[in-house]
Amino acid sequence: MRFHKTLIPTLKEDPVDAQVVSHRLMLRAGLIRPLGSGIYTWLPLGLRVLRKVEAIVRQEMDNAGAQEVLMPAVQPAELWQESGRWDFYGKELLRFTDRHDRPCCFGPTHEEVISDLVRREIRSYRQVPANFYQIQTKFRDEIRPRFGIMRGREFLMKDAYSFDLDAEGLDASYQSMFAAYQRIFQRCGLAFRAVEADTGSIGGASSHEFHVLAESGEDVIISCDQCDYAANLEKAIAAEADAEAGEAAAPLEKVATPGQKSIEEVARFLQLPMDRLIKSLLVETPAGPILLLVRGDRSLNMIKAANALKLPQVTIPDADRAAYWAGVSMGSLGPVESRLPVVADHELRNLRNFVCGANEEGCHLRNVNWQRDLPVPQFADLRNVTAGEPCARCHSGRLQRHQGIEVGHVFKLGDKYSKAMNVKVLDSQGNEQILVMGCYGIGVSRIVAAAIEQNHDANGIRWPRSLAPFQVELILMNPRDSNEAATGEQLYQALQQAGVEVLLDDRDERAGVKFKDADLLGCPMRLLVGGRSFKEGMVELQSRAGDLSQRIPIQDALATLLPLVKGEGHG
Amino acid sequence: MRFHKTLIPTLKEDPVDAQVVSHRLMLRAGLIRPLGSGIYTWLPLGLRVLRKVEAIVRQEMDNAGAQEVLMPAVQPAELWQESGRWDFYGKELLRFTDRHDRPCCFGPTHEEVISDLVRREIRSYRQVPANFYQIQTKFRDEIRPRFGIMRGREFLMKDAYSFDLDAEGLDASYQSMFAAYQRIFQRCGLAFRAVEADTGSIGGASSHEFHVLAESGEDVIISCDQCDYAANLEKAIAAEADAEAGEAAAPLEKVATPGQKSIEEVARFLQLPMDRLIKSLLVETPAGPILLLVRGDRSLNMIKAANALKLPQVTIPDADRAAYWAGVSMGSLGPVESRLPVVADHELRNLRNFVCGANEEGCHLRNVNWQRDLPVPQFADLRNVTAGEPCARCHSGRLQRHQGIEVGHVFKLGDKYSKAMNVKVLDSQGNEQILVMGCYGIGVSRIVAAAIEQNHDANGIRWPRSLAPFQVELILMNPRDSNEAATGEQLYQALQQAGVEVLLDDRDERAGVKFKDADLLGCPMRLLVGGRSFKEGMVELQSRAGDLSQRIPIQDALATLLPLVKGEGHG
Repeated sequence: MRFHKTLIPTLKEDPVDAQVVSHRLMLRAGLIRPLGSGIYTWLPLGLRVLRKVEAIVRQEMDNAGAQEVLMPAVQPAELWQESGRWDFYGKELLRFTDRHDRPCCFGPTHEEVISDLVRREIRSYRQVPANFYQIQTKFRDEIRPRFGIMRGREFLMKDAYSFDLDAEGLDASYQSMFAAYQRIFQRCGLAFRAVEADTGSIGGASSHEFHVLAESGEDVIISCDQCDYAANLEKAIAAEADAEAGEAAAPLEKVATPGQKSIEEVARFLQLPMDRLIKSLLVETPAGPILLLVRGDRSLNMIKAANALKLPQVTIPDADRAAYWAGVSMGSLGPVESRLPVVADHELRNLRNFVCGANEEGCHLRNVNWQRDLPVPQFADLRNVTAGEPCARCHSGRLQRHQGIEVGHVFKLGDKYSKAMNVKVLDSQGNEQILVMGCYGIGVSRIVAAAIEQNHDANGIRWPRSLAPFQVELILMNPRDSNEAATGEQLYQALQQAGVEVLLDDRDERAGVKFKDADLLGCPMRLLVGGRSFKEGMVELQSRAGDLSQRIPIQDALATLLPLVKGEGHG
Repeated sequence: MRFHKTLIPTLKEDPVDAQVVSHRLMLRAGLIRPLGSGIYTWLPLGLRVLRKVEAIVRQEMDNAGAQEVLMPAVQPAELWQESGRWDFYGKELLRFTDRHDRPCCFGPTHEEVISDLVRREIRSYRQVPANFYQIQTKFRDEIRPRFGIMRGREFLMKDAYSFDLDAEGLDASYQSMFAAYQRIFQRCGLAFRAVEADTGSIGGASSHEFHVLAESGEDVIISCDQCDYAANLEKAIAAEADAEAGEAAAPLEKVATPGQKSIEEVARFLQLPMDRLIKSLLVETPAGPILLLVRGDRSLNMIKAANALKLPQVTIPDADRAAYWAGVSMGSLGPVESRLPVVADHELRNLRNFVCGANEEGCHLRNVNWQRDLPVPQFADLRNVTAGEPCARCHSGRLQRHQGIEVGHVFKLGDKYSKAMNVKVLDSQGNEQILVMGCYGIGVSRIVAAAIEQNHDANGIRWPRSLAPFQVELILMNPRDSNEAATGEQLYQALQQAGVEVLLDDRDERAGVKFKDADLLGCPMRLLVGGRSFKEGMVELQSRAGDLSQRIPIQDALATLLPLVKGEGHG
């Protein structure tokens, strides 16, 4: 491709409002341009990268035996009503009515559509296992789109749905997809980690997320430093501490804690470590307000809370509303003699002589003990684990925290959708049997951003070889010099004939501008034609990684370069 | 691909409600399944065909120097307000608001989005000409979706937009696209015709449509049987008849025509040929009711009428409304002493002593003449031409009518959008200059249906070689026979290694079922393994076209088949 005939609008300066490096570099390298909030146009170079990701995903899905289909973007509401998600799915579902006032949505996911297809077309156990995938534009109406395409509203996704006769079949399908995902992210040249995950609004029995490790990642993932345990923050657990030897119960006392509002303030005021206090948190649920308790040095995880309560979600009410329910301001709220239902984190089970709010303005209770002072509550996993806690799997390792960008997610859905939508076949005995499903997503466009988060330096992108828009950028230092231009053209043609993807920078610009842009665009290899080297019959070959820089005779350029760019590698 | 592991839900019977052959065959061959009105899922085989069309389109667009981009499906309303189309475009534009109540639409076309991109990113005359294209899912909320994907609501389209400095540049871009389109449709193996076309709601100066000729086509196209004149019905003109020698004006008379309502009835009643009568047609426009006149044997073309009146559209009012405006029922309406503005078809200019309604119930006027009996009206092109009329270009040929399926459309938009949206660059003198645009569409998914309309027989599809989902269907007549199965497997592997796309029908079905399905699916070549031939060490090679059927020794199968399937051909 010739640079001067291609729209590659590079920017010298970092755009304002682009908070993460991939967003900045995608704008600066002219890969994308915004059209509206969370909506982007892919320009020629960006689209080339996107298509490379797409091709890798397609190949591995095909190799894993999945069948490619293409389902509609616009979906009728009836199917979502049938599955129960029309009401359950929030405002991220872009809903509208067509000209005949039929309610529809722009599909953010396709469980309903594929279930409808399968129940119509698959009748016999002989037709399963079956796994259908598509690579398609999806829309999720994020309340706060951010980080460019990383959390955009319109995005390219690969979604796959497996159908099996039983749980063993689903296990096999799930493992097959899990393995395909590992190959996909490996081929994309990404450092990634598969972690146990919460199943969230999609529902189902178990799931794993695939995270690209990057500081800008919005997700926290937890892993053990000794065994292979890894989970996202919503799912991660630590080993429970052993029950303590049993400190004797001290007498309950009420203490004035005037003006001490936060848990840190109260701990300091009472000269106690934070882990002797409990945090009482009032949350709002469809079932009314509930009081949740975690240890003073811990933080509540809202998704764990929702799962523990078996509710779609829990929210923090505003202060007025909370005070109305609690009868006291939040700083003095506590479980003793509370009218609210109480659920406590597992970790509090063995806590003795603890401190909590007294449900009286400016007062706390100390030496509180279960059973003696208040009923033993329901215990559940409510809190975020923290770095350094012992691993619940191996008990010898310690947990670590990383930031991750979620690029893939595999779910065992079980019969959640197939039961609601009556997706069944006749088994070998002629009996009707509900199929069990898995679903498997990859954020195709998000991978492009994640790859940049992992592969860049101060000067620009450093594409993994398998995703680079071009393997080679061929820079004509002075296209007005007819000898240079002729040599450049010959090399350009020769490389293309050899099957190498080349970007020929033939712009009428200063060489310095071209070098800077080449750093920004990040093609793995660079071939410079011009300057003193050219007069000496040489061209310069450089790698974007910086580990290669050599002068080679012009006639040897092709032979030297080809082995370096051929084959798919990681960079 | 193995048939038994692929969802290819063939149907023995024609589905009800599928009116055209492509719709019936796409359903029967298991290429698509409906999800809702005008919305389809592409199943594995259908998607393979769609991707082939897409690949041909992409290659030819790239070869023509167009740059591929990918614009968003969801577009903000502001851009459409800026171009003026938000109000103008009818209910086919699927509009909605997002969660923040911002008005948006599901893009049916992308003139606004690309204009916005270009005005931001292209500043200099050096950056043009530029031509951007995308292959993308579009949505048009058709009031009456029909004929399967032929006139669906969600469809795959290639749209391209060229930007040039001046009219000469646009001419060159337009010609380049015109030539690319010809190559595309040729490579798809289609019999097609490029015709002059009305520019419709997209606007602009001139345009051509590309039609696949097929009886089921919804469009009428007109061509000359001697020269290369061809146009769609909205645009086609015939040579005007020479002014007649001049029949003397006869005295005007009013005649009673009781109960004669249609033009046919009046002509018969008065014993006059239909071409001596004029039809008076009342139409409703944003500028009020207007009386349009065409010769008694002609029909009014509403799009021509709208163009003549320079209005976005004209409509036929209901009978009550029409009678209120006209003061008389439609059968007796006429232009003499009418209060309504009158526009007459060109053909009426030289008509003398004609008959028209008398604006009095049950009465007509005969021997009416312009100027003497009523003012000479504005004349314009209002009527549909008919087969057999003389060609306006060569004057020696006769016009023919064909049915066509529109698969492509190229427009010279001129500055319609670039002016409204201020798309300008600095020219070589440093002056601002508005760019001129062209736009170029291809109905990628519609081509699949059009190809079937042209390539089928009573038993099923007969794919052009370039679009076939597989070049070869390899039929195992009895997969339970281990010798047959082993030979089939060897051939399957060998063909795939030779780069041939093969569908292996390895289903546990009767051979007759497989033959019928093979006819239905329409792969160009078929290789049968089994039966008596197999016992004699032979396989049978057949073409779907029926022009080839031979027995060949198993060991020669590959060598015989390869030359027949290699290379892209038309069938």
